[in-house]
Amino acid sequence: MVGTRVILAGSIAVFGICSAIAADEDATLLKEAQQIFQPLPRDMRTAGTPLTKERVSLGRLLFVDPRITVDGNVSCATCHQPALFGTDGRPTSIGVKQRTHPRNAPTILNAALAFVNHWRGDRESVEDQAQQALTATITSGLDERDVIDRLRRIGAYAPLFEAAFPNDTPSMTVKNMAKAIGAYVRTLVTPAPFDAYLAGNIDALPRAARTGLEVFIKSGCSTCHNGAGIGGGMYQKFGIIEDYWTAKGSQTIDKGRADVTGNLADLYVFRVPSLRNVAMTAPYFHDGSVATLPEAVRIMARVQLGLKLSDPEINDVVSFLNGLTGDVPPEFAAAPILPPGAVAAPQR
Amino acid sequence: MVGTRVILAGSIAVFGICSAIAADEDATLLKEAQQIFQPLPRDMRTAGTPLTKERVSLGRLLFVDPRITVDGNVSCATCHQPALFGTDGRPTSIGVKQRTHPRNAPTILNAALAFVNHWRGDRESVEDQAQQALTATITSGLDERDVIDRLRRIGAYAPLFEAAFPNDTPSMTVKNMAKAIGAYVRTLVTPAPFDAYLAGNIDALPRAARTGLEVFIKSGCSTCHNGAGIGGGMYQKFGIIEDYWTAKGSQTIDKGRADVTGNLADLYVFRVPSLRNVAMTAPYFHDGSVATLPEAVRIMARVQLGLKLSDPEINDVVSFLNGLTGDVPPEFAAAPILPPGAVAAPQR
Repeated sequence: MVGTRVILAGSIAVFGICSAIAADEDATLLKEAQQIFQPLPRDMRTAGTPLTKERVSLGRLLFVDPRITVDGNVSCATCHQPALFGTDGRPTSIGVKQRTHPRNAPTILNAALAFVNHWRGDRESVEDQAQQALTATITSGLDERDVIDRLRRIGAYAPLFEAAFPNDTPSMTVKNMAKAIGAYVRTLVTPAPFDAYLAGNIDALPRAARTGLEVFIKSGCSTCHNGAGIGGGMYQKFGIIEDYWTAKGSQTIDKGRADVTGNLADLYVFRVPSLRNVAMTAPYFHDGSVATLPEAVRIMARVQLGLKLSDPEINDVVSFLNGLTGDVPPEFAAAPILPPGAVAAPQR
Repeated sequence: MVGTRVILAGSIAVFGICSAIAADEDATLLKEAQQIFQPLPRDMRTAGTPLTKERVSLGRLLFVDPRITVDGNVSCATCHQPALFGTDGRPTSIGVKQRTHPRNAPTILNAALAFVNHWRGDRESVEDQAQQALTATITSGLDERDVIDRLRRIGAYAPLFEAAFPNDTPSMTVKNMAKAIGAYVRTLVTPAPFDAYLAGNIDALPRAARTGLEVFIKSGCSTCHNGAGIGGGMYQKFGIIEDYWTAKGSQTIDKGRADVTGNLADLYVFRVPSLRNVAMTAPYFHDGSVATLPEAVRIMARVQLGLKLSDPEINDVVSFLNGLTGDVPPEFAAAPILPPGAVAAPQR
């Protein structure tokens, strides 16, 4: 009986030491994470992009209005659907007249965190992206004059533009449409368990996710996927160690940013994507060629870092990535009711 | 001074008499309306279509999931968008692979009130409509096996089907998908000011709307547009007095139900549409060939009733029809978050 008590006391002591070590490790990991990542801001406004109530609510309408594209059947929300966490779930999007976009549509959620937009960085900002999309062949099929003509035929829009852009005559322009859509998009942040973790609540991430976070940092993933977006802050070559198309069976080879700049140093270079909500936004990569997150993690470790992660390591990393899934903003999930009006010409 | 008081007292007396007459007329009109129209039910369930929580919530997911159609870019919500009051705002809808539907998509809101579905009545119920749409060439492009294969690849769906259809093996069938979608659709009612009016609150409709209601009844509109749906309860020939295509410049002539039944008596016969939310669901008629509500009212009076309504009469009828605009159910406006998973094959 005395012996049992000694053993028991010893076990408790050992347990106490172990949990003290674990707590130390947790604290160290948190501190490290806080140096690499930042929590989400409340919104993504900048000095040049004021989020006035009028602009945001107008942008929210325009975002879901399909009547301002050639056949009246495509809106921003076609590629950025609330039900699919701001994506369309497709490898690459289908725009107007069944025209296929060359690359995968990233989620619109938190998109304004990125230093540039689009996979090849050829959109300066969410406003630039919106402005180009509003008159592009794939996403619109209309020119500026026709877009504005469509808007004018929906009587209730004019006063909304005047209220959102009181100093502009005319206020109803594609540039202002883009500013309004941009203002709305800059409100779409999705706070996640990882943000609570970064704020000091270690238990906001389960043990496996914290192990995964450690793998994520130690393996070098966070060299590129860092900051508030857990990515979206730099360019990087896809396939540093090995050609990406060999590793994942891409059907075509995309030269990436080299096709934009004409610079050979940009061959296979893409903007590093944000990993926020990545568990909800399959399929993966610029061509949407990979369907599952474990497979995407495995391939990234291989072609970017020359690492063969074990299955348990991959599972832990996926657990960490699950902790980046945030809450969809209610004003994004809920469709606003559009001003009524038929604008497209009859077509049989 | 005495004279003035006499005149004033007389005016008050006349005003009193007038307002008593007006109140009488209002009461008479309400009584008449209550015999022709019914307020909305709380939901549209029938004995054979139980609205279990599990079926409704599964149906709500399936309704917005585009991944179960050939290119993964069309769902029920493509033609029945929340932002456009359950329509797509187009004359006729565009389905998969840019295939055009032959007729205008009516709103899905209150759709289960109708005695049959589709313009030609060739869908027995909302369940029948859903089941056929899930494997049709225009709306799906997949056969039953492929639809179920797509669903299976989204792991989270299987338990939802088992919970919604615990007695069925297998539970994941197109028939059960249709039952779930039907259950959801049967919840989508939009109580409107006119329902409050029918319940006895005369002031729920402004004076012009009540005048319009009277025109609507006296002119004979309510001969067909009656019941809880203000339409949707019978078939009728479109163009009783005059060919509809002459009056409204339709580009093609649709033989209507005659093409379904092969019966010459059904030539140009269509299901009478519900007028609930009609002010929010332009364009109008089976071919969506008319863009505005006043024009639609004018044409209907002419070709169905042989009447030339005056502009004030048309405005009053439109005011009445505005009173049929209800509240979009919040669970329809807000997109549910779909279980994640990429299902469509990569396509470049």
